[in-house]
Amino acid sequence: MTNEYLVRIDVERPATVPDAEWDAVMAREAERARGYRRAGVIVRIWRIPGTRSNVGIWSAASASELHDKLSALPAHPYMKIDVQPLAQHYVEL
Amino acid sequence: MTNEYLVRIDVERPATVPDAEWDAVMAREAERARGYRRAGVIVRIWRIPGTRSNVGIWSAASASELHDKLSALPAHPYMKIDVQPLAQHYVEL
Repeated sequence: MTNEYLVRIDVERPATVPDAEWDAVMAREAERARGYRRAGVIVRIWRIPGTRSNVGIWSAASASELHDKLSALPAHPYMKIDVQPLAQHYVEL
Repeated sequence: MTNEYLVRIDVERPATVPDAEWDAVMAREAERARGYRRAGVIVRIWRIPGTRSNVGIWSAASASELHDKLSALPAHPYMKIDVQPLAQHYVEL
């Protein structure tokens, strides 16, 4: 059984990054995110309204694997990430 | 389209509530929670490991309807509840 995690990601663009570079990173980020969603690494993801932030349910064999997946995101250097491991609730049994 | 909400619930048992009363409330709470899960009011729910807390994805037509659903929980008087409305993320389009 895989583990699930509640992951909140806040994207913070530094003022020093030029538009063209930022757009390129965001394009690669979108492609990677769609790939993760298709592969089930991201189970579900939502936008926090009015922000650049998102919250999602991620699936991984371990916290170490999750760390690798998050670290591989193209926009990772510009992210603040908060991870909450999730356990089974009796309603889901 | 219904709205989705990230809901975190922390259950805090007051020292003044006798065991029998607490057990009765918890039994009614479990029944209601299973009903909400079956009905899709609770889309998914997880335990925060090591705590009496849970985090879940809830579905409701509006924040007011969600409020009514949460307020109707038998253990509601013993809950601290945090609600985050969720918007569509481009990966989910």
